Amino acid sequence: MTGPTKADSAGNPAAQGATTCKVALLGFGTVGSSVAKILCERSNAHLRLTHVLNRNVERKKVDWLPADVRWTENIEDVLASDTEIVVEVMGGLQPSGDWIRRALAAGKSVVTANKQLIAQHGPELTLLAAQKNQQIQFGASVAGGVPVISGLHEGLAGDELFKIQGILNGTCNYILSQIEASGVPFATALREAQKLGFAEADPSEDVEGLDARAKLAILARVGLRCYVAPASILARSIAAVDVVDFEYANQLGCTIRQISWAELTQESKAGSHNATRNDATESDASNDDKIFAAVQPALVELSSPLARVEGSKNMLIATGKYGGETVFGGHGAGGHPTAVAIVSDILGIARARRGECSYSGHPIEKKPSVTNDFSAKHYLRFLVKDRPGIIASLATILAQSGINIDAVVQKPGCPKSHLPFLITLEECKASHVEEALGKINALDFLVQPCLHLPIL
Amino acid sequence: MTGPTKADSAGNPAAQGATTCKVALLGFGTVGSSVAKILCERSNAHLRLTHVLNRNVERKKVDWLPADVRWTENIEDVLASDTEIVVEVMGGLQPSGDWIRRALAAGKSVVTANKQLIAQHGPELTLLAAQKNQQIQFGASVAGGVPVISGLHEGLAGDELFKIQGILNGTCNYILSQIEASGVPFATALREAQKLGFAEADPSEDVEGLDARAKLAILARVGLRCYVAPASILARSIAAVDVVDFEYANQLGCTIRQISWAELTQESKAGSHNATRNDATESDASNDDKIFAAVQPALVELSSPLARVEGSKNMLIATGKYGGETVFGGHGAGGHPTAVAIVSDILGIARARRGECSYSGHPIEKKPSVTNDFSAKHYLRFLVKDRPGIIASLATILAQSGINIDAVVQKPGCPKSHLPFLITLEECKASHVEEALGKINALDFLVQPCLHLPIL
Repeated sequence: MTGPTKADSAGNPAAQGATTCKVALLGFGTVGSSVAKILCERSNAHLRLTHVLNRNVERKKVDWLPADVRWTENIEDVLASDTEIVVEVMGGLQPSGDWIRRALAAGKSVVTANKQLIAQHGPELTLLAAQKNQQIQFGASVAGGVPVISGLHEGLAGDELFKIQGILNGTCNYILSQIEASGVPFATALREAQKLGFAEADPSEDVEGLDARAKLAILARVGLRCYVAPASILARSIAAVDVVDFEYANQLGCTIRQISWAELTQESKAGSHNATRNDATESDASNDDKIFAAVQPALVELSSPLARVEGSKNMLIATGKYGGETVFGGHGAGGHPTAVAIVSDILGIARARRGECSYSGHPIEKKPSVTNDFSAKHYLRFLVKDRPGIIASLATILAQSGINIDAVVQKPGCPKSHLPFLITLEECKASHVEEALGKINALDFLVQPCLHLPIL
Repeated sequence: MTGPTKADSAGNPAAQGATTCKVALLGFGTVGSSVAKILCERSNAHLRLTHVLNRNVERKKVDWLPADVRWTENIEDVLASDTEIVVEVMGGLQPSGDWIRRALAAGKSVVTANKQLIAQHGPELTLLAAQKNQQIQFGASVAGGVPVISGLHEGLAGDELFKIQGILNGTCNYILSQIEASGVPFATALREAQKLGFAEADPSEDVEGLDARAKLAILARVGLRCYVAPASILARSIAAVDVVDFEYANQLGCTIRQISWAELTQESKAGSHNATRNDATESDASNDDKIFAAVQPALVELSSPLARVEGSKNMLIATGKYGGETVFGGHGAGGHPTAVAIVSDILGIARARRGECSYSGHPIEKKPSVTNDFSAKHYLRFLVKDRPGIIASLATILAQSGINIDAVVQKPGCPKSHLPFLITLEECKASHVEEALGKINALDFLVQPCLHLPIL
C-alpha cells in the first residue's frame, strides 16, 4: 500500500486496482484458517496474506494457501516485515497482549477476536493505537459474525442507548435449549454440547458466565460509553437449572436463557444532559452514574425474541432513548462467522488507509439481469360457486403445467355460492404457476381471481 | 470545522473539544423536527444546526431551537453558507434531487432519507459526491432506525452475501398483522392504519409494494453489490389477502407477510470468483449474472423470525456464504427512529471530516459505579422433603424482607422426599430476594438450595 488515494471518477476507490493491503495471521486454529480461506477466496478484495504464525507451525501447513505466504513460529518475523495489519486469533491474555502492543508500536494496525484481552485491556490498547496513528478493531470479540460492535458504535451512533440485553454465549444457549427440547438434565446436555464441539472440556468459562461478562463489558463500553470492569459484573451459573424449571417456566408463558444485561439507571439517564457529564473524563466521571450489569439465567417471555434464539446462536437487543429496541441476531461462534467479523474489520482498516472513510461508495460489482421467477411451494386460495368437477378442472390445468398438488383444504360451513378453499402446491416455478393461473382465472366457477402466494 | 485532526493522548479525538460540524436541515416535518430535537439534546456531539428550510417556514417555527438557527424558504441561503452537511428530509424526486446535486457541487456532504431518489439516482449521486470529495449517506432510506445499510456494508463486509429477505414496509406489516389479530377485512385494517397515521391517505405506494421495492433496490446495491432498477422488481399488492387466508396459513403452520426478497441465482454465485467478475464494471458486467427480486405477500413459517415481526416494525435477514443468516430488526419508521439513522450518518461524516476513520476510539463518557441489584418479578424453585408448614415458613421469611408472593405452583405426582415446587414473586429488588434466601437456604426441609431466577 502506497498511501491514501481518493475515489476515481467512477465512484469506485482508485486504490482498489492499485494497492494491496498486507495481512499477517497470528494463530491458525478454526478461526484463523477460516480467515485465511476468506482472504484467499476474495481475490477482488485486494488483501494479501503475508504470514501465518503458530506454534509447531510445520503440522499446520496447508496446500491451499499461496506459496509466498510465510509460515513462522517467530513473532519477530511478523514485526520486522512490512505487513500492515496483524490479526490475532490465538486467544489468552499472553503472549497475545504483548504481541499486540509490539505490533501497534511497530506501526501496524491490529484486528483481534480476543474478548478477555479487550474486556480487560481495551482502553489501554485503543490509546496505544491512537498514539501510533493505528487502529485496533475487535468486532469478532462479541457475537461472532453478528455485527454488534459496528451496529452499536456506528449504526446507532445517533441514538442515546441506555440498555443492552442479549444472549452472548452460544454454549449456554445450546445447553439450555437442549434441556428444554429433550428434557435431559444439565449434565447430559453439557456432555452432548462437548461431544458436538459446542463446549470446551473445561466448560466453566461458559457455564459460569465469565465468557459472556467479558463480552458484556465490551458492549457496555461501545454501546453505553461506560467503563465496566468485567470482574464487577455479576455472573451466575446455569448449572442449577433443571428440567422441572422449564416445565414451570412454560406454565408461566416463559422459557429460560442465559441473559447478559447492562442498563444505565434512571438517575444517570436523567443526568445525561447536564453540564457535568459533558466534562466527564475517565478520571472524574460522576459517581452518581450507576450501571446495572449481570450475566445470569433468567425467565424470558415466550413472546420475546430472546426466547426464540436457537442452539448456539446469539442475539442482542439495544434500547435507545429515540430509536427504541433494535435487534441483532445470528451466528455467535464458529470459524466462518467469526472470520467474517475479522475480515470486515480488516476491510474497514484497509478502506481507512486508502483515505476512504465511509460506506459512501458502494462499488457496483454486478449489473445482473433481473428475474422475478423463483421456485417455492405455493398457496392457491380460491373462492368459487360450488359445483361438481371443480377440483378435477383445476388439477388438470395444474398437471398440464407440470405442477404437483400437495394438499386440498376446505374450510367447513361456508355458503356454496362463495366457497373458499385452498390448494397447496409442491415446489415449482412461479412462472409455471402464473401460466396455469392464466387458464384457471378464466374458469366460470371462480367468484374472484385465485389468490396465489409463495410459501417461504 | 478547521480541518482533520488526530486523536489526543487520551484516545479521544482532540477535535471533539475544538471543532463543530455545521448542519442544515431541508424539511421540518415529523422526521426533520426529530432530527433537530436530537441535535439540540446531544450537546456533546459537536454538531450545530445552522439552517431549517421549509415551505411556509413561518408556521413551522418552534421556540425550542437555538435563536441563531436561520429559518428560510430559500435554498440559496443554505448553499451560500459555510454549512458542511445538508440533511434532506423533504422526500420526492424534485426539488430534492436538484438541491442535493447543488449541495454536493458546492462542497457539502449530504444525508438523506429519500428512498425513491436513492433507489433511482443513487449511483449517479454517489459518483458526484466522490468527484467533489464529499459523501452522500442514506442510512435512513431503508428500515428507519434499524442500521441495515451500515450493517450490510461494514459489519458484514467480510462475507459474500447472496440473499436478502425482509419486511421493509411497516404499513403493510401493520395491516396484515391487524387482519390476522382481529379478523377484520383488508379495507377495515387499512382504514385503522390510516386513522393511526401508519398509512397515507393514498396508500398505494405502500400497499402495492412500490415503497418496499425502492428499499430493496437500495439493499441489493449495498448488500449484494448489484444494480437493480426499482421498476424491474416484481411488486404484488397485499390488497387481495383476506381473513380466510390467515386461517388457512395457520393450518399450514404459517402466517402471511409482505416479503421483500432479492437473491443472486446459483449461476452468479458460482461465478463470483472468476476472473471476469473482478474486471466487471457497471457497463460491462457479465450478463450471465441473474438476480431474483420481488416484493409480494408470502406465507412464512411461524418459526421464522419474519413471522413474529409485529405492527409497523421492520426486519432484514441477510444470508452470506460464510456467516449464514444475520438478522436486523427494529422500528422501521417514525420520526425518532428515522432521525436516529440520520444523526448516525451525520456523526459518521463528522468523524471522517475530523480524520477519524473508524470506531477504534470509543470515548469513555462515564465510569459509573456498577450495581448488580435490579427489580424484577422472581422465580423461586424449591426441592424439599415434604412436611406440613413449609409454605408458612417460606412466606414468613419472604414477608420479613418485604416481598409479596405472586403464586405457588406444585407439579403433581412427585415423591414426597424430593418434591419440587415453585413460588413466583411480585416485582421486588434482587437484593431483598438474596437476603430472604440467606435465611431460607438454612431451613432443614430443603433438599438443595433454592434456584432463583429473575423473570424478564
